[in-house]
Amino acid sequence: MEERYDIAIIGSGPAGLSAAINAKIRNKKYILFGTKNLSFKIKKAPKVNNYLGFYDITGEELGTKFKEHIENMGVNITEERVNAVYAMGDYFTLMVNDKAYESKTLIIASGMEFSKPLKGEEELIGKGVGYCATCDAPLYKGKTATIVAYTKEAESDANYVSELVSKLYYVPLYRETVEVNSNIQIINDRPLEILGDEKVEKLQLKNSEISTDAVFILKDSVAPAQLVPGLLVEDGHIKADRKMLTNIEGCYAAGDCTGKPYQYLKSAGEGQVAALNAIEYLDTRK
Amino acid sequence: MEERYDIAIIGSGPAGLSAAINAKIRNKKYILFGTKNLSFKIKKAPKVNNYLGFYDITGEELGTKFKEHIENMGVNITEERVNAVYAMGDYFTLMVNDKAYESKTLIIASGMEFSKPLKGEEELIGKGVGYCATCDAPLYKGKTATIVAYTKEAESDANYVSELVSKLYYVPLYRETVEVNSNIQIINDRPLEILGDEKVEKLQLKNSEISTDAVFILKDSVAPAQLVPGLLVEDGHIKADRKMLTNIEGCYAAGDCTGKPYQYLKSAGEGQVAALNAIEYLDTRK
Repeated sequence: MEERYDIAIIGSGPAGLSAAINAKIRNKKYILFGTKNLSFKIKKAPKVNNYLGFYDITGEELGTKFKEHIENMGVNITEERVNAVYAMGDYFTLMVNDKAYESKTLIIASGMEFSKPLKGEEELIGKGVGYCATCDAPLYKGKTATIVAYTKEAESDANYVSELVSKLYYVPLYRETVEVNSNIQIINDRPLEILGDEKVEKLQLKNSEISTDAVFILKDSVAPAQLVPGLLVEDGHIKADRKMLTNIEGCYAAGDCTGKPYQYLKSAGEGQVAALNAIEYLDTRK
Repeated sequence: MEERYDIAIIGSGPAGLSAAINAKIRNKKYILFGTKNLSFKIKKAPKVNNYLGFYDITGEELGTKFKEHIENMGVNITEERVNAVYAMGDYFTLMVNDKAYESKTLIIASGMEFSKPLKGEEELIGKGVGYCATCDAPLYKGKTATIVAYTKEAESDANYVSELVSKLYYVPLYRETVEVNSNIQIINDRPLEILGDEKVEKLQLKNSEISTDAVFILKDSVAPAQLVPGLLVEDGHIKADRKMLTNIEGCYAAGDCTGKPYQYLKSAGEGQVAALNAIEYLDTRK
């Protein structure tokens, strides 16, 4: 266990980056979880004209500006996926595959996951459906598990899980070449529904079905309410006030995950507000 | 009276500019009130490091970026001072010295006026204390009036008022050379208190006092609650929700006037949110 952080930021889109530079400027001990190629979404924008200060810029160019900014300030991105966060009262524990981090405050800037849940997914959470394969795999020793993988990053999780369970199916939903251990059975089919009464029994796909005890759904980001138990979500967005404070003390949110409009500048502004209010909160607790 | 606007924006700081570029991109008929040298405050910042995308930039350089952005987009600034706004139900009337504008929605991005009111000022509003000298001067024909001027822009107002009243005192609180008509009596002293029971009787200054029927206080920006009667203000800031909507339908606010932190990026993000929500509101009314 490392020393407790002042601010843990989940997400490296505009909101997370903006929060991080404010934490850095204010000399707080912070950690920023995300990917070094930044938000993969920003690059898709062909032309951005409404980020005040930059006229006629592409999403990719703007992403480069953001990257240069944080690099110049020495802001580092920790490329680990936070699978769950527990509010411990006066601090938070962030679970990453093989370790845990502690932080006094939390800023959720994880964006919006636009893929809809599978039919049956939400009903069977905790009854065989999970979002952290490596956390839950030990529960399925000697049993059959299935990983539905939205990103290539899931492959290392799959390799690890395959050593614990007796049978692992792997359903890749990304375009890159699949490279996993040979004991994993790859299913190239589209998942439709998770079936089961008390617990997961089957994964129904378009052209096939799999009998399985567990379905691990590995997305780029975990839905906030699943990430932080007890977090208040309304209409699919984290409920936050004008200070970007959520219903949990010390827990702030910023960017798309807090609601529309989904815009870079709105997200960056909120990241700043979240960070400065988290700092104010830290100062009051000294 | 010109054609009714979709969006009227008061203030040309980061919040107002950001609102304007969003209105422009969305093809709305908008008007932006402010000064072409933009917010005079931004230039005072020696170094800005927390506006995501710009590292190691001065306030002046950032102001230039903003200016280039709006110029490239053809966003024009109307250099007139809005003295009062009246909510008419489904539109707003904006009073400028010699004319009025109408707009379906309003975005207040007027920043923070940090100067405190004079003692007695708030108690005597409408009883001789006013913020629009040219509007109210005709009421003081043949009487004595006093202008307390926080900025040099007040001089043209003073010249106009001096032709209507029988005696005009002018109290300049700025550093630039004072250039007003010779029939105006300049008082180089610091005002302390406005006195009067039912109506204004006297202006008490540090080293002198003036008997006067009216005191016009001309600041760079009028306090929001004085600008828009009925607007809800809490702890000195306009109360706005996450959509930047105030307590008045169709009336939005953005930037410093809505609360801390006082930061360019926060303001710009809020200007965008205000504009996009105003547009959504306009769309629902079609």
